[in-house]
Amino acid sequence: MKNFNFYAPTKILFGKNRINDIGKEILQSGKRVLFAYGSGSIKKSGLYDKVVSILNQSNIPFVELSGIQPNPRMSSVREGVRLCRDNNLDFILAVGGGSVIDCSKAIAAGVSYHGDAWDFMMRKAKIETPIPIGTVLTLSATGTEMNGNAVISNDDESDKRAMGDDSLRPVFSVLDPTLTYTVNEYQTSAGTVDIMSHIFEQYFTDDQGTFIQDSIAESILKTCIKYGPIALKEPDNYEARANLMWASSLALNGLTVSGKLAGDWATHDLEHQLSAINDLTHGAGLAILFPNWMEFVLNDKTAYKFAQMARNVWNINESDDMVAAKKGIRCVRDFFVKLGMPSSLSEVGFKDEHVDVMADKVCMFGPVGMFKRLNVDDVKAIYQRAL
Amino acid sequence: MKNFNFYAPTKILFGKNRINDIGKEILQSGKRVLFAYGSGSIKKSGLYDKVVSILNQSNIPFVELSGIQPNPRMSSVREGVRLCRDNNLDFILAVGGGSVIDCSKAIAAGVSYHGDAWDFMMRKAKIETPIPIGTVLTLSATGTEMNGNAVISNDDESDKRAMGDDSLRPVFSVLDPTLTYTVNEYQTSAGTVDIMSHIFEQYFTDDQGTFIQDSIAESILKTCIKYGPIALKEPDNYEARANLMWASSLALNGLTVSGKLAGDWATHDLEHQLSAINDLTHGAGLAILFPNWMEFVLNDKTAYKFAQMARNVWNINESDDMVAAKKGIRCVRDFFVKLGMPSSLSEVGFKDEHVDVMADKVCMFGPVGMFKRLNVDDVKAIYQRAL
Repeated sequence: MKNFNFYAPTKILFGKNRINDIGKEILQSGKRVLFAYGSGSIKKSGLYDKVVSILNQSNIPFVELSGIQPNPRMSSVREGVRLCRDNNLDFILAVGGGSVIDCSKAIAAGVSYHGDAWDFMMRKAKIETPIPIGTVLTLSATGTEMNGNAVISNDDESDKRAMGDDSLRPVFSVLDPTLTYTVNEYQTSAGTVDIMSHIFEQYFTDDQGTFIQDSIAESILKTCIKYGPIALKEPDNYEARANLMWASSLALNGLTVSGKLAGDWATHDLEHQLSAINDLTHGAGLAILFPNWMEFVLNDKTAYKFAQMARNVWNINESDDMVAAKKGIRCVRDFFVKLGMPSSLSEVGFKDEHVDVMADKVCMFGPVGMFKRLNVDDVKAIYQRAL
Repeated sequence: MKNFNFYAPTKILFGKNRINDIGKEILQSGKRVLFAYGSGSIKKSGLYDKVVSILNQSNIPFVELSGIQPNPRMSSVREGVRLCRDNNLDFILAVGGGSVIDCSKAIAAGVSYHGDAWDFMMRKAKIETPIPIGTVLTLSATGTEMNGNAVISNDDESDKRAMGDDSLRPVFSVLDPTLTYTVNEYQTSAGTVDIMSHIFEQYFTDDQGTFIQDSIAESILKTCIKYGPIALKEPDNYEARANLMWASSLALNGLTVSGKLAGDWATHDLEHQLSAINDLTHGAGLAILFPNWMEFVLNDKTAYKFAQMARNVWNINESDDMVAAKKGIRCVRDFFVKLGMPSSLSEVGFKDEHVDVMADKVCMFGPVGMFKRLNVDDVKAIYQRAL
């Protein structure tokens, strides 16, 4: 086990009607709020009216930033930064899924930065003194509600990149599983894949002696495998939505990577280029890529870890590592299909001609991945087998 | 799953030589330090000199409170409060095991309280504005390094009680597994039992739909079962010490009880009276009591949960709940014996005559426990079967 810091100070307000607490929580960190949200879905559901009512009752002045898109764009980030500066806002309330929250983090960091916030993504600027954010989560998927990371797309460049800092962790996050009852089948599945993928990225590493982290990772995978299909069949099954929602936060708050050198994250790098090109839902892209990544990196050195997953997560009773590993990967592939996710890139409109451009962008800063380092040819090979 | 708050803001500095960071961390929250520790063991190990050197290098003035005993006493708490007030100290650095840290928390709360700090234990006073504390942990056991709880004994009254508040969570905790290499076999075993007992208290509840919490609880139990015996045989096995240390913190930071009505905690209530009477090591008392509590509360209603533990933790392949439950409890009993822990009260000097007094104190505020409510006769019965 490697040395690590674990720091997850976000106050989680979990359960039904916890939104009623946001006025009090906001006032502990700010006075004037940017209320950020996405499309009109929170207006349809009544959540928008609820938030407005609570902010008004709490005498908290606010300005709205609406229309934040899935795979959030720098244009929304820039608009948010402008609104905060022009109106002296000192707190961001992000109401939505990962895109709204990630966009809010980039805005939070951008307010006090003299340059353009895309610099954070391009590693040209350090994140300093962001304004605090709080979230009301409406989709169980990214885990952004309990960490300091954000992923932003640059509309001008068809590029999608990550930024992160402990100071971007939300001061509070409301996790009300009933707010995910209206999430449709496709997004429920994609969210479940996203949660599992975060675990995969942190589980498939070569670190030794991290039994407790890996065992907790297996618990989170089992939670997704149990409850993903239930949430599909019964969208208002509280137990399923609650377990998936808490799994989302625990999967990427540092718990399962603590003590490891780093996560792998190659598959995420590959996926980001997919959704940058055609706005493919992140989880759907991961569902296509992950089984292919697993098959590509499977070899005599890596088989032990896939075998561990096969035995501890999929209950595969098989002593030979390579055989167990292949069966485990097969289970992942079959599970994603069972969730109704696409299984090939061609299914979602990608062609051979996209591969080279995407692979070059993935490897812009050099090889990616930790469990097996992938150069640009490896990345192309994974895209090709996923076509 | 019930509504819950999860708030674990303690910054964990995990790994070798992390103590080197304490100067910087202290200065984020305080200026003048009470350096609290126990017996002379940190002087023998060199840890005392290291701390003094770092405080001096960081230009942090400090006053020492030494001699904090296992099952820490109100006399130490009162002395610490006096030292903080007399010297205008605004931060406590607790270097030691659970006793030193718990004592420090009571001091932290007591500094700004006009009355005697025992009032917190007797539920006569509310904890308000404690001074911040940081810890350097030297024993994997209580989990106090990542939560807001403390257990204190009143030397005058042979009584031992708990206090707790989120504001008492340490701002940082240094978890360096190498600092536990010198922990002897008995204390290593008692610590492992303590970690497992914290899980038991939160796992054996009647809450439904808490799959993810219970699965993580099972992961922590499996960690203890794997690494407790290794740490006994190889005291300087880093992997074993590291997994046990992180298990200690995760077992009682709120993670496994979140979403449940409450933990059971009856067995802890029973144990506190044991160690109040003869300074029995907490974990040793728990090792005696837990299998007896399990057997006492096992019935047709509770068997399902013991069976779940048997199957998921002890790999017992048995479909009948009651049969599986009994085998699982047997495994717990055998494991504690394997760790070299005592298995009966008479072994450690208790007699029939103690039972009534202890049971009355346990039930001072009424019945205890949640999984099965225990009245004073139930408590007597458990003590009796443990004799």
